Amino acid sequence: MNLSVRVKDILNLFPDAEVSGSSQVEKISGIANLRDAKVGDLSFLGNSKYKNQVQHCRASVILLPQDYSAPPSQNQLFIKINKPSRGLAQLCELLEAKLCPPEKPGVHPTAFVEESAVLEPGVSIGAFTYLGKGAIIGSNGKIGTHCHIGRGSTVGDGSVLHPGVKLLSRCQIGKNVVLNAGVVIGSEGYGFDQTDEGHQKIPHLGIVVVEDGVEIGANTCIDRARFEKTKIGQGSKLDNLVQVGHNVQIGQNCLIVAQVGISGSVIMEDNVIVGGQAGFAGHLKVGKGAKIAGQAGITKDVEPGAFLKGNPALPFHLAQRIAVLQRKLPDLFNRFAQEKFRE
Amino acid sequence: MNLSVRVKDILNLFPDAEVSGSSQVEKISGIANLRDAKVGDLSFLGNSKYKNQVQHCRASVILLPQDYSAPPSQNQLFIKINKPSRGLAQLCELLEAKLCPPEKPGVHPTAFVEESAVLEPGVSIGAFTYLGKGAIIGSNGKIGTHCHIGRGSTVGDGSVLHPGVKLLSRCQIGKNVVLNAGVVIGSEGYGFDQTDEGHQKIPHLGIVVVEDGVEIGANTCIDRARFEKTKIGQGSKLDNLVQVGHNVQIGQNCLIVAQVGISGSVIMEDNVIVGGQAGFAGHLKVGKGAKIAGQAGITKDVEPGAFLKGNPALPFHLAQRIAVLQRKLPDLFNRFAQEKFRE
Amino acid sequence: MNLSVRVKDILNLFPDAEVSGSSQVEKISGIANLRDAKVGDLSFLGNSKYKNQVQHCRASVILLPQDYSAPPSQNQLFIKINKPSRGLAQLCELLEAKLCPPEKPGVHPTAFVEESAVLEPGVSIGAFTYLGKGAIIGSNGKIGTHCHIGRGSTVGDGSVLHPGVKLLSRCQIGKNVVLNAGVVIGSEGYGFDQTDEGHQKIPHLGIVVVEDGVEIGANTCIDRARFEKTKIGQGSKLDNLVQVGHNVQIGQNCLIVAQVGISGSVIMEDNVIVGGQAGFAGHLKVGKGAKIAGQAGITKDVEPGAFLKGNPALPFHLAQRIAVLQRKLPDLFNRFAQEKFRE
Repeated sequence: MNLSVRVKDILNLFPDAEVSGSSQVEKISGIANLRDAKVGDLSFLGNSKYKNQVQHCRASVILLPQDYSAPPSQNQLFIKINKPSRGLAQLCELLEAKLCPPEKPGVHPTAFVEESAVLEPGVSIGAFTYLGKGAIIGSNGKIGTHCHIGRGSTVGDGSVLHPGVKLLSRCQIGKNVVLNAGVVIGSEGYGFDQTDEGHQKIPHLGIVVVEDGVEIGANTCIDRARFEKTKIGQGSKLDNLVQVGHNVQIGQNCLIVAQVGISGSVIMEDNVIVGGQAGFAGHLKVGKGAKIAGQAGITKDVEPGAFLKGNPALPFHLAQRIAVLQRKLPDLFNRFAQEKFRE
Repeated sequence: MNLSVRVKDILNLFPDAEVSGSSQVEKISGIANLRDAKVGDLSFLGNSKYKNQVQHCRASVILLPQDYSAPPSQNQLFIKINKPSRGLAQLCELLEAKLCPPEKPGVHPTAFVEESAVLEPGVSIGAFTYLGKGAIIGSNGKIGTHCHIGRGSTVGDGSVLHPGVKLLSRCQIGKNVVLNAGVVIGSEGYGFDQTDEGHQKIPHLGIVVVEDGVEIGANTCIDRARFEKTKIGQGSKLDNLVQVGHNVQIGQNCLIVAQVGISGSVIMEDNVIVGGQAGFAGHLKVGKGAKIAGQAGITKDVEPGAFLKGNPALPFHLAQRIAVLQRKLPDLFNRFAQEKFRE
Repeated sequence: MNLSVRVKDILNLFPDAEVSGSSQVEKISGIANLRDAKVGDLSFLGNSKYKNQVQHCRASVILLPQDYSAPPSQNQLFIKINKPSRGLAQLCELLEAKLCPPEKPGVHPTAFVEESAVLEPGVSIGAFTYLGKGAIIGSNGKIGTHCHIGRGSTVGDGSVLHPGVKLLSRCQIGKNVVLNAGVVIGSEGYGFDQTDEGHQKIPHLGIVVVEDGVEIGANTCIDRARFEKTKIGQGSKLDNLVQVGHNVQIGQNCLIVAQVGISGSVIMEDNVIVGGQAGFAGHLKVGKGAKIAGQAGITKDVEPGAFLKGNPALPFHLAQRIAVLQRKLPDLFNRFAQEKFRE
């Protein structure tokens, strides 16, 4: 990374910080973790388990928690604040605005906005974006290039749609939502009746509701409900290439890592964490705070707080134990064969 | 869902229905399943296993099969028809047209259509869509916004391409096909020769053929063949984020759930059903009517009618039995250790 | 395939070839493998294990290695060259230019190019494509329709971006790179701090670097790094729907098949081969030349040259052996039960 940020500007971000030492440089030129940082960089102690790395760190500026007691090296500035991770995030937001200044409010001349669409103040609409009839973009919403905002869909205040998002008709996006590039919201649900003349499509008339503060990764797809709504609860974060089937209800503050597949009508309660590539059969209930390991295959309801792994999924420690025993199967089979001979 | 459909209009859909009871309401305001329906809703008995729920159902109108014999509750209208599921689909189509009226025929002023492209009567072309040289859209085809129809590609009568579909050059889409948002048809196959100078690309000159009545889910990708054609057979339904490699031949009326991966040159016969996230190694043959459980890993040919699960995939019941026994491995190892001591 | 290529033009491609026999036809009408080829087709012996198929092959023209000794059939032309696979690729390139002539250099009238963007000679820019401020497209670059080239991003000489590629800001694409339709480069990394007020987003300020000769499949997503760069090394080939997390470092000439998921900060050395749907937990190191079977779940560092399978992943032969023994578990449990009775 090639930055140029004045140390003075960084200090201004943290008026309540306790500062010690002095940086040789007037501007930092990069950000790096404690181990990789070099002279000119800013580093940070975000997790106390890396505490021992601070004394060997070569960064010119280090963000530290208030209880860190050792002194800075020569030509090193310590900035002690309440939450260094939060402080780093603040700094990054400053940098982000520099590196990639947000689009100015306004509609790009190549965009097409239907007459009945409504743009609140501060909205920016990117090149080649289409806004359908009755669509509403809340204040300061940022809609990237090549987006489709379907008829009657709404996007809440401060939400960001990256390039190529397809938000189909009548769906509702909350405030401060981030939809990464290529996300599809409101595709047809996968439901067919088996008839004598083949699979007969079941129309999906419902919608998708994405609540406030949700973030959704690139090329992830969320199908509309059959009659009611598919819902992604407040503050939940979905990674890239995730599949969310029709009528799924995802609770608040769930974390769903890349390539997870959630079949139709699954109900996931709050604070569930799902590792990458895990899959859920349809119509399941996943209890509050459950953790599902990557690649797990969930075919039954999951108790609140459970931690499951494998397919079929088992309690994590049992799954680990069985994995160890499986590696001993060749030995067990051998020994079993020998035991028999003795009799 | 917030509907407003006159009961009279619903009755008009089913001129041959046997009607009993009377609805308190003049208009239905929603559709719901038997258990969730409330006064004002329409419900339906699509599957006879839910028969017992009818008597407790609070819906104002219920679609029932002709052999349902119990009488309606007070203020409840029974509409008995030959196939309630089919009837519901008919009703939904009526509602869909109301909720989301189809685009009127015509080319959006922002679209770009090459001179040699052909649009049959009744076609609609969405905003920012590009039609390449010699492309043909059959009558009543509906092409959404931001679509790319490559040079020489054809789309059959009545097919629907949702926003952002990329149909690359020379591919053939049949009649009444649905391609959901973000689908890619005709991407380059993944084939490389290992040479001393690294992986040498093998050009893929073939095409993709999607037959009549196929539906393909959002962001699914289908690669073009090396020389001939990758084929999706008539009436097959693919869900979201599915990968279909070069030269794959999928038969008729297959059901392929989300995130399935099908490697190059797989031949899948008719009526195969594949659960989500299952994967197929290349050059396999999957026999007619086979069923593959979600997340299964198929590395060998599959017999017609087989039902497989797991990786390596085993017959379903054997896989289930082994899964049960695996959970008993800790016990088996313990007991085995004890048995030895006795000798 | 329906071709029409003069045999004379094919011979011109291979001036050093040793030619024997004579083709009945003046033009070839298709290309097919040895087994499927019919009169009028061209075929080829790319892999010596199919040597025995040559004598029964009905193709009118066959590309063969120089050491193939048997004579052609009647009305059959043998073209013996140093590397038939390479020769076939050359022929295919000729055909590709005929079947699908590349766009002429120039900017499509519907494209939008910011003033400060730079187009080197020979560049073509497709319909509805957006080039951001300071973007640079190297000479002979081909940018398809509906692409987004973000502010400050660069694309090297001779690279091809298929329709709908989203190359977000400040990312660097090398020379002769192919990005298939719908690829997303530079999406936000998936990283959140757990705080009392929910998951707090960690800004991702880094970039993505894609080195020379890389090819990336349709709808694949590559996240930008937190501070530095996510890197795809020279000559590596990624298939469709692959997920590459923030800060991942992929070496040179890796092969990564469809739907693989690579979590943040994984380091993959050169020449690694990964089968479809395999997954990698974060912060792992995968040694040079390692092979990972399809659907494997990698949760620990992988030694150079290792060949792993399964989840948890084991050495391939051990995994195979355990899979065989698992199928014998029902028998083992039965026999164990019986043995006990004897005592």
